[in-house]
Order: sequence, then structure tokens, then C-alpha cells
Amino acid sequence: MSNLALPLLNAVPGRAVRLSAGQTLFSAGQAPEALYRVDKGGIRLVRDGACLHLARAGALFGESGLFAQVWDCTAIAENAATVTAFPRHGLLLVLKAHPDLAVGFAAWMAARLDQARSDAEILRLKGADQRILAAIALAGGRLELDCPLLAWAGQLGLTHEALYRTVKRLVAQGRIDRIGRRGFRIIG
Amino acid sequence: MSNLALPLLNAVPGRAVRLSAGQTLFSAGQAPEALYRVDKGGIRLVRDGACLHLARAGALFGESGLFAQVWDCTAIAENAATVTAFPRHGLLLVLKAHPDLAVGFAAWMAARLDQARSDAEILRLKGADQRILAAIALAGGRLELDCPLLAWAGQLGLTHEALYRTVKRLVAQGRIDRIGRRGFRIIG
Repeated sequence: MSNLALPLLNAVPGRAVRLSAGQTLFSAGQAPEALYRVDKGGIRLVRDGACLHLARAGALFGESGLFAQVWDCTAIAENAATVTAFPRHGLLLVLKAHPDLAVGFAAWMAARLDQARSDAEILRLKGADQRILAAIALAGGRLELDCPLLAWAGQLGLTHEALYRTVKRLVAQGRIDRIGRRGFRIIG
Repeated sequence: MSNLALPLLNAVPGRAVRLSAGQTLFSAGQAPEALYRVDKGGIRLVRDGACLHLARAGALFGESGLFAQVWDCTAIAENAATVTAFPRHGLLLVLKAHPDLAVGFAAWMAARLDQARSDAEILRLKGADQRILAAIALAGGRLELDCPLLAWAGQLGLTHEALYRTVKRLVAQGRIDRIGRRGFRIIG
């Protein structure tokens, strides 16, 4: 999930932007000015009242704005948030001038695309136990979360309570082990 | 969803590969040789027994294989399928030599990433009616499917029956209209 592996961002200086809960960062129809990284809090992308994506701390968002004339969604701070804005114009100049960075950016997005597609497949499974077991299996049978359990529940489309209850049952059934506070391992 | 908008694929000749149902196209651990487009049927990407992604006719898959030493998943034909294989080596040469094509590929992946993320957000909604209404809203209030209703049900994580029943109820409640065989519109 690390964006540190994206050398493109080292080539263009970013600018910190602080947002209060509910504040709008950009609106649908506006011309995109930047690619963003969430440093603290979360940013919700919405269109026509429906949520497109919730970007959490550490994640980039607005990749498609680099290549679009106008935003097709609105970005709103979910809570008090800090983001870094990397200017679009500078990024595009760098991408066009440095094929290695452009290929690196494509590689980075391909990995994000794999992740987003597998997130969706997990969410298509019925039942909390299937989703939890699939998420651990897809991580190679051993998953160490880089987010709180509450955030993981949200990613899996489960309530906090359903996640806790199901993890407890899977541990009692000997199907998974817990590793530390935020780790899980499939047994057998 | 069209891949015709990806000029990169015009720069490298593809090769048709026919697969019978259940046949393996590539296996986890093998060196990637190509980027693939599904022309007919479906290809299931699996890892450790869990499904990562089901690529349907018209879609590309294996983007991350362009940039990886080995596949981290196995690709199996869901049914009798035809795919076009675009050789990895040729694609990488073209990407590095033609910044415009590399930026175009990045733009194409950014759009796919938006789509995959919003697919996941829709799947996080509880209940068939919320998912159906959100999918139509995110398409601008009017959605014309480019796939059969059965495939759309799968994308929404619903059974065929639940989709039909819920669409019927939403139409009866005056919340959506049907447009032709595969279209929907939100009313009001």
C-alpha cells in the first residue's frame, strides 16, 4: 500500500493542504489542479450523492484527474484531514519527459488496480467468514493489517461487530490464528 | 469499458489464444509473457484458492504482469474463451520509447482504477436496492449496460433473482424506469 515506491512524487514538490471535517477539496466540473496523497484522515469522493471511493491515510487519489479536463466527482474531507497536493502540470511534464517515471507510474497503478479488483471480488462473497478467509488467503495466508480493525471492517463491507464476532468464531474453530493486535494467519 | 481507446495495443501485434473451459493460461510463479484482452468468454484470476478477478469479454487483464518478474496469480478459462496476447517485451519497449503512449496507458489505467474502486464502494452498500440505485446514480442517473443482466447481477454481488425482484420493485415504486432491455434511469 506504500506510495513511497512511486518515484514520480519525488520529482515534483507537493504542498500540504489542511481540511476541516466536511470541507470540500474540489468539486465535480472544476479543472483538476493536482494529484493528492492523504497524510491524515480520509477523503470521500462522491458523485450524484453516491460514494465512489474513500481514500485513507497513505493513499493517493485523483489519478484520473491528471488526464481529464474536469473532475467527474467531488472530494470532501471525511474528518479533519491533511493532504499533499502534487501539481498536475508539473507531474504531466515529468511523465512526458521521463519514460522511466511514466513506466513506474503505470506499474504503480497496475498494482493498485489489482488491489481494487480483488477488494471487489472479496466483497462479492457472501458472509463475513468467507470475506475474512479470502482476504487472508489472498495475502498469502498471513495478513498483517496496516490499518485499525475498524477500517478493515469497512473495507470488507462488514460492521465492526460482525468482524469481531466472526474472527472470534474462526479462531475458536481453529481455522485462523491471531498474530499480535492486527495480524491473522490461516491454519492448515 | 472500451479498450479500443488504448493506442498502445495498436503498436504491438497481438496473437489469438483459444482456451477450453477450465484450461490454464498461465500459473502463479511463471514469468509473464503478455498482457491479455478477453475477446470471448471469461478468465478467472485465482490465488491460494480465492478469486482475485473475473475478466469478461472486452476487458484487459494482467496489466501488473508487464512490470513483474513472475505472476502472483493463476489465470483459468471460466468457459470456452478466446484471448489476444500482446507480448510483454514489445509493449515495454514501446512504453519506454513513446512517452505519449506511456501517458495514454497511465490514463487508461487511472480510469480502470476509478471504475474498480467504485465497483467496490457499491458492493459495500447493504441491500440490493441501494446497490442498484448507486450504480445507476454513478453512471449519471442513466445506465445502459454493455453486458447481460446476469453479468450485471454478478458485478453487484447479487443473485439473478434478487436483481430481477429488486428492479421490479423499484420500477413499481416509481423510483426507476427501464430503458429498453438493458437500460435503467433514476426518476426524479
